[in-house]
Amino acid sequence: MNIIEIIEKKAKGKKLSRKEIEYFVFGYTKNEIPDYQMSSLLMAIKLKGMTKKETVDLTRAMLNSGDVNDLSNISRYTVDKHSTGGVGDKTTIVLAPLVASCGLTIAKMSGRGLGHTGGTIDKLESIPGFRTSLSFDEFSNQAKKIGVVVIGQTQELVPADKKMYALRDVTGTIDSMPLICSSIISKKLASGANIIELDVKYGDGAFMKSKKDAKELANLMKYVGQKLGRKINAVISDMNQPLGYNIGNALEVIECIETLKGHGPKDLTSLCLHICAEFLVMAKKFTNYDDAYDYASNNLYSLKALEKFKEFVTAQGGNANVVDNYKLFKQPKYSCDIKCDRNGTIKVVKALAIGHASMLLGGGRMNKDDIIDMSAGIVLHKKANDIVKENDIIATCYSDKIISKELQNLILKAFVIK
Amino acid sequence: MNIIEIIEKKAKGKKLSRKEIEYFVFGYTKNEIPDYQMSSLLMAIKLKGMTKKETVDLTRAMLNSGDVNDLSNISRYTVDKHSTGGVGDKTTIVLAPLVASCGLTIAKMSGRGLGHTGGTIDKLESIPGFRTSLSFDEFSNQAKKIGVVVIGQTQELVPADKKMYALRDVTGTIDSMPLICSSIISKKLASGANIIELDVKYGDGAFMKSKKDAKELANLMKYVGQKLGRKINAVISDMNQPLGYNIGNALEVIECIETLKGHGPKDLTSLCLHICAEFLVMAKKFTNYDDAYDYASNNLYSLKALEKFKEFVTAQGGNANVVDNYKLFKQPKYSCDIKCDRNGTIKVVKALAIGHASMLLGGGRMNKDDIIDMSAGIVLHKKANDIVKENDIIATCYSDKIISKELQNLILKAFVIK
Repeated sequence: MNIIEIIEKKAKGKKLSRKEIEYFVFGYTKNEIPDYQMSSLLMAIKLKGMTKKETVDLTRAMLNSGDVNDLSNISRYTVDKHSTGGVGDKTTIVLAPLVASCGLTIAKMSGRGLGHTGGTIDKLESIPGFRTSLSFDEFSNQAKKIGVVVIGQTQELVPADKKMYALRDVTGTIDSMPLICSSIISKKLASGANIIELDVKYGDGAFMKSKKDAKELANLMKYVGQKLGRKINAVISDMNQPLGYNIGNALEVIECIETLKGHGPKDLTSLCLHICAEFLVMAKKFTNYDDAYDYASNNLYSLKALEKFKEFVTAQGGNANVVDNYKLFKQPKYSCDIKCDRNGTIKVVKALAIGHASMLLGGGRMNKDDIIDMSAGIVLHKKANDIVKENDIIATCYSDKIISKELQNLILKAFVIK
Repeated sequence: MNIIEIIEKKAKGKKLSRKEIEYFVFGYTKNEIPDYQMSSLLMAIKLKGMTKKETVDLTRAMLNSGDVNDLSNISRYTVDKHSTGGVGDKTTIVLAPLVASCGLTIAKMSGRGLGHTGGTIDKLESIPGFRTSLSFDEFSNQAKKIGVVVIGQTQELVPADKKMYALRDVTGTIDSMPLICSSIISKKLASGANIIELDVKYGDGAFMKSKKDAKELANLMKYVGQKLGRKINAVISDMNQPLGYNIGNALEVIECIETLKGHGPKDLTSLCLHICAEFLVMAKKFTNYDDAYDYASNNLYSLKALEKFKEFVTAQGGNANVVDNYKLFKQPKYSCDIKCDRNGTIKVVKALAIGHASMLLGGGRMNKDDIIDMSAGIVLHKKANDIVKENDIIATCYSDKIISKELQNLILKAFVIK
């Protein structure tokens, strides 16, 4: 087999065999195929596409490039969720204790954020004392004992993806369905859960701009995950404006606690209940989705999920008193209200602009080594369809830095008012 | 400007501006853009194409990546020919003295061969004493004095092409009209001639397999060359079977001498006369092609061109007595007749197979550092449309190595007989 022949074959739009795909994935991982050949091949894949079968073969090869977690000794069914990422996406922090309160096990490895706002791990670390680095034994024992554990990704699970993603990032080959699918699914499968829910977001603040593309990606990922032996489902969710009202690490955890108290924003609450219900059906706890949804809903509103959240926080060394006293979170030095400059109806609050502003306030990392300001962020007071008048306070922003007029203006402009 | 944005723009099929093209050509030449980004961009160019204007901009940028020869002190009009390469292509060796005998100046830098048979420089070196390494002063003085000089390429004229071609060769991005065009034309223009004839070959033994592709490439190259200020024309010629009857270095020079004596093969003779006539028209020596052709023809059959050939060989240190005594060429140790195995009519003598066999006999290089056997090669006795009988000798092959049955069979199989 020869890498140039494989590149030329794909450039002609022909299908690659499983052996050819394994050849370039393993060869690249072992540094036997140089970057310049891989980037040429990745561009050919981006422009000529891959069949579903090729995408399955690619994902399998990437999965097999490194270790695969074995969670079978933790529980018969372990569940996991993957979001393609969005502004104010705090779903895991509500969903994980909710799912555990329903008797399922969620043993999750999560990432840190770059750009926009922080990742789940960053958000959880805004809870004083919360530890996200556990040994595999601690991880496994906590999952067995209380049904929920969330840690930072320490192992390198899919070495092929690490190399390929870094290369794609600098060669204009990020934007490709089979490459996105294989990157996400190989990592998700390597994490070890056997029941997976994908949250594929679309819109201004998401990677997928259109609902159509989000659906296509979701269907492809479901197909590949199922072919590789997992139970997998997907929800398509709107990310034209941020999820919920709070953006920023501590601010998002507070909104999650409010949601677990039963008075969270509608979009976040219903997304969490929906995913939980899907988990319950996939895990065969219920045969009927509506019954599963009611059960999840009951666990939320009866505060069982909130109790599980406290247990979860305590187990990982965090101060569970934050649930009753938000002052225990780090407080920002500065805050500032954003006032509306006209009368009208809000069409949308642009997610990307809000995410960017939150990062500039200190809530996200511009570079990998930046330190996040846990207190920084934005609370929206109004969202789409709300009627506003001039001088209404439509958002409040928080930071340890003085908040410039320019930055305030950036937030104001994120509100599209007609 | 940003290379990733340029890659993404081309991947979307959009046109690149002259500035963007200069940015990546100069950046790559100066090692500021790494191979892995360039190969991704080259694949995007191969699969999404380039407009004629982009191809002009690319060629100009490549041309400007290094020095451009100035031949203006040699002659008002200097002519040059470029062939896209083929088996038995010995045109330059007849054409150069023919053109000079017609009063034009040809100051040519030519290449060595890899694969198939040797290049023009290798062929000329089969003449005892012939020097192909001259200083620029020697080169320039000889051109002024006798109107013809051919040397090996020593300077690095288009550094951008050298790097890009080496990368294309290992990343499956050779096969692209704008990339082929810019590579050929930038080098040809940098050589300094202001009148250029392109010989674009098609068929089994050529890089372009179809006549349609050859025409498309020829038109594109003419367009680009003209836009960049040169007089340029192109001939499309058939390379389904070798040009002439002799393949191999000394064998081809002998066939050229025969042609200059007026009894060369028809295909080679008419190709040389045609190109010479086009040069004469472009150099405004004639306004009418037919008159120019007659003039060139007269110079050939009156042996003026042969006299010029002797002058040319002598000027470059070669023994011009070879013209009258072919025994002065290195003689092979072994020879072998190939006999026909059936009765019928020859449909074609496959150029690629003959070229490959000639290389195996020692007439070409498999690797860059291989030493060529100047005496090795094949003489065809029959070509397409010839009627043959079983046991007719259809070819004779020559080598310093014992000629295996397998190799003899390879040559026999190149004759398609129906």
